[in-house]
Amino acid sequence: MWTQHDLRLAPRPRGFHLITREVVAAVPELTRVRAGLLHLFLQHTSASLALNENASPDVRRDFERYFNHLVPDGWGEFEHTLEGPDDMAAHIKASLLGPALTLPVRDGRLALGTWQGVYLCEHRDDGGARRLVLTLQGEDGRAD
Amino acid sequence: MWTQHDLRLAPRPRGFHLITREVVAAVPELTRVRAGLLHLFLQHTSASLALNENASPDVRRDFERYFNHLVPDGWGEFEHTLEGPDDMAAHIKASLLGPALTLPVRDGRLALGTWQGVYLCEHRDDGGARRLVLTLQGEDGRAD
Amino acid sequence: MWTQHDLRLAPRPRGFHLITREVVAAVPELTRVRAGLLHLFLQHTSASLALNENASPDVRRDFERYFNHLVPDGWGEFEHTLEGPDDMAAHIKASLLGPALTLPVRDGRLALGTWQGVYLCEHRDDGGARRLVLTLQGEDGRAD
Repeated sequence: MWTQHDLRLAPRPRGFHLITREVVAAVPELTRVRAGLLHLFLQHTSASLALNENASPDVRRDFERYFNHLVPDGWGEFEHTLEGPDDMAAHIKASLLGPALTLPVRDGRLALGTWQGVYLCEHRDDGGARRLVLTLQGEDGRAD
Repeated sequence: MWTQHDLRLAPRPRGFHLITREVVAAVPELTRVRAGLLHLFLQHTSASLALNENASPDVRRDFERYFNHLVPDGWGEFEHTLEGPDDMAAHIKASLLGPALTLPVRDGRLALGTWQGVYLCEHRDDGGARRLVLTLQGEDGRAD
Repeated sequence: MWTQHDLRLAPRPRGFHLITREVVAAVPELTRVRAGLLHLFLQHTSASLALNENASPDVRRDFERYFNHLVPDGWGEFEHTLEGPDDMAAHIKASLLGPALTLPVRDGRLALGTWQGVYLCEHRDDGGARRLVLTLQGEDGRAD
């Protein structure tokens, strides 16, 4: 069984945002999969996906602080500066965290750990809407 | 063909640990797959998986040293400090390295390079046992 | 439908290189897949794969500059120095960026964003040829 959906994420401010529920809601066939995988893919080069702590908002604020420290806006050695000081830093953060996640599916649900949630990591000041491609594959678990 | 297994990794000290053999042993169906993929997924937010040099223990010690330098325990700007100085640093290391690996399978074996081995990256001082979900899919290569 | 190909990439200088076209050309069955996934896997521990901006060469030069700053060759605390000052730094960069990418396939093409291209990230001064394993799976979209 294969299904593929597009999900448009509304614009969000720069920072790390929980999107687990929105992703699950966009793939109704998930409930039918006995064992499989869900692939999440962001079609952008200045935002990224991560899987991390889903309870404390301060964890997500610390991610934003730390990554701004690690890859400073307008770093002095950047050559690609035409699109603003946050652009090149955003490209690098995007590749450090990555554009995709593959998550296990079991008995109709994502088989995540208790504290795991999907983050949209918005690295631009004004990134706008973001597009995800969601690809689900697995064994159909419905009774015949 | 789809199979899914849980693997409980015994507690390990903070650091980078080779677990390739343990992973392969947990998926006996691997030997039957002609062409496929094995997905490894860690159900935690303060440890991670990586694929790197499988021969020299000093490489794994250098990973530990470097990542402690990159993301210092108790970094002064962290807000989420309730769970100890190693906690927030562990969350960030976990997302820099990632919670999952997808590895090619060919003729009943992982199609790794000569020097590639799977690392469990334990970022907590006392992380305890860790759970992996292993999802194997591929073409069954057994004669009919 | 499953297919698996080996792709040998000719030696490239240290730096970040676009290889999207070379990858697509190595998987002719891609054009037949209605919905699926292409998995790219590098069988090495001192080079990596990333997905980022495909238009401006200065972005790729900034990646090289930034990663050299982030993980300096011959960093003073490295213990594994036998293979030269660029070796241990290359191992760490390889795990920060990762050895694999999974990309969605739709209607016979990679479903990438407009600006996304596949990078081979060569972290060694003299890395030589590099081997990729390309695994394609999906629903065959040909008319019966």
